[in-house]
Amino acid sequence: MSDVKRIVIVGSTGSIGRQTLEVLRSFSERFSIVGLTAGQNTVLLEEQVREFGPSYVNFQGREHNILDARFLPLQEIVSLPEVDIVLVAPAGIAGLKPTLWAAKAGKRIALANKESLVMAGDIIKAEIRKNQGQILPVDSEHSAIFQCLRGEEKAAAKLILTASGGPFVKYTRKQLEEVTPEQALKHPSWVMGPKVTIDSATLLNKGLEIIEAHHLFGLNYNNIQVLIHPTSIVHSMVEFVDGSIKAQLSCPDMRFPIQYALSYPERWANAKLPRLDWESTEPLSFLKPDTTLFPCLELARNAGIEGGTYPAVLCGAGEAAVEMFLSKKITFLQIASVIEEVLNKHSITSNPDINVIEEEADRAYKMAITIGAK
Amino acid sequence: MSDVKRIVIVGSTGSIGRQTLEVLRSFSERFSIVGLTAGQNTVLLEEQVREFGPSYVNFQGREHNILDARFLPLQEIVSLPEVDIVLVAPAGIAGLKPTLWAAKAGKRIALANKESLVMAGDIIKAEIRKNQGQILPVDSEHSAIFQCLRGEEKAAAKLILTASGGPFVKYTRKQLEEVTPEQALKHPSWVMGPKVTIDSATLLNKGLEIIEAHHLFGLNYNNIQVLIHPTSIVHSMVEFVDGSIKAQLSCPDMRFPIQYALSYPERWANAKLPRLDWESTEPLSFLKPDTTLFPCLELARNAGIEGGTYPAVLCGAGEAAVEMFLSKKITFLQIASVIEEVLNKHSITSNPDINVIEEEADRAYKMAITIGAK
Repeated sequence: MSDVKRIVIVGSTGSIGRQTLEVLRSFSERFSIVGLTAGQNTVLLEEQVREFGPSYVNFQGREHNILDARFLPLQEIVSLPEVDIVLVAPAGIAGLKPTLWAAKAGKRIALANKESLVMAGDIIKAEIRKNQGQILPVDSEHSAIFQCLRGEEKAAAKLILTASGGPFVKYTRKQLEEVTPEQALKHPSWVMGPKVTIDSATLLNKGLEIIEAHHLFGLNYNNIQVLIHPTSIVHSMVEFVDGSIKAQLSCPDMRFPIQYALSYPERWANAKLPRLDWESTEPLSFLKPDTTLFPCLELARNAGIEGGTYPAVLCGAGEAAVEMFLSKKITFLQIASVIEEVLNKHSITSNPDINVIEEEADRAYKMAITIGAK
Repeated sequence: MSDVKRIVIVGSTGSIGRQTLEVLRSFSERFSIVGLTAGQNTVLLEEQVREFGPSYVNFQGREHNILDARFLPLQEIVSLPEVDIVLVAPAGIAGLKPTLWAAKAGKRIALANKESLVMAGDIIKAEIRKNQGQILPVDSEHSAIFQCLRGEEKAAAKLILTASGGPFVKYTRKQLEEVTPEQALKHPSWVMGPKVTIDSATLLNKGLEIIEAHHLFGLNYNNIQVLIHPTSIVHSMVEFVDGSIKAQLSCPDMRFPIQYALSYPERWANAKLPRLDWESTEPLSFLKPDTTLFPCLELARNAGIEGGTYPAVLCGAGEAAVEMFLSKKITFLQIASVIEEVLNKHSITSNPDINVIEEEADRAYKMAITIGAK
């Protein structure tokens, strides 16, 4: 890797993508942006192209170049030989393919997407090993664990994922029955996209993170614990074999883990990132999650333990359920029950290839839509 | 270093010494105890010799062998060529000489004593470098920082030392005026010897730790912060240049840092050490210390900043003040004022040698006794 890191951002117009560009603004001498890719927001993409001058772009819709940036297929962009780092920002199943392509190209992947490892962790890890790539987690929890494991890879006994619990952490069942999408989209501590924000409110997000942590760090599912920590200051912890625990803390701001994934193994001074002010920080509290009111957590853990195609079904059904909730076709509590019904109807395929994984996720998505429409 | 580590415990009958032997009981196949040394408690020392079978002993009083263990001068024991690790347990100025001797002999020093680095940090570090020795901190705060710095030695921007605050953390001046030695000896979270327990109550202990941290980790005094954390779960923290913070946590039990210093760079499973139970753990709170009611903290920081013989004077005066408080010759609040008066009367010697350091500490001790008797 040269001194100037050459980077592609997949999903540069979303929440993580925009925050990544904000970090890169502070370190323009250290990075050159080779490619920016988006979904449908070509207006913002064009602004970003004007500011950052990538050589290549990709987006959904009619193909055309943007200013001097050439339109290329997404797989080609993430596989370009001159690219050092591919940051995969999109939430949801859309992140699977770019992650797999970058793994096949042996890139260093700064991974903000959860579903790719959740659905196809074994396949992606095999490609990483084969092509000597690397995954650096951007999720704040996995970045925290990655930081806590630095210098002590072999001694971890337990991972403790913290969860803000979302906006409804102290709600009763009665209150949860009446939750609106508008309420669910107001996250108390983190700025995130809509899919992740709703998944945070149901704890499905934390469930996906359990599976992701299992793939990233190799610990058994029963050694991955979740604690509700409403203020999101402690981003996660590792308990070592001797009982000593390390935690990583910061203000809840995604620019921290984004920058760490980009600067790793270095750490770079960045005065724009907020410092914790201990005088105004509330006491740090940790509670066991209520798995009865928030069943998605254990639905996900069990899907991970079952393995095979179950995690893909979880992701497909979850994506449909969140869309239906946002468009007010189902209630907040039905998100979990729709997912559970789809999982219950699934027959596992063990060691699925990537096509089977995508097909099963798609089938689960459609089944969830059908169930939700009833 | 061979597979079986050969260890000398200086101060095996004190609080840290006994807890060290308790840890070693769980790992008898990994250690051989070459020497045990004590002060005046030869009754307990003989029990320990019977159980652990060291080749050599040292204690205060009339010289004689204990069972098969030969009496040797302390300097000879810590310098024996077959010794890998010297654990220096005693609190107070008594720890200075054994630490210096072990440094001259190029040993790995598991250091529980604070005063040796506080008084003679530069001299001891020069001997460590020259003789290729090593210091592994046993103090829980410095062990925490040492653990947090693992794998990231160059990126620390700030050290955050936590302090239980001792038993009087929320006392008013009026209440502090009436504090008895019996009250001060009851520490809310840690089991420690009397000198360290009283120093915890005055925050002098934390002040000494600031100086110790400066010597161990090389940060400037203005980048070493102290936070009151009454439940002693977070043992200290490191803030890195990027604003990310790492903390080390465990139940407050000195066996954790003792074991880490002995097992380093490994971590060993030890089921006898208590695990944190998050359901019964109170929220972790952090407060700024009250430096008006507890002036020893800044007295110590300033002695460290002045350097030269000031830290030795601090230690000498502090030792006298604690003795006078315990024998009810001065009040709790007078501990700080006696120390301050001795410091104010001192004329610095820069770059003192070890003799000057010891002389000035002794002179300060005597001056404090004189002041306290008035």
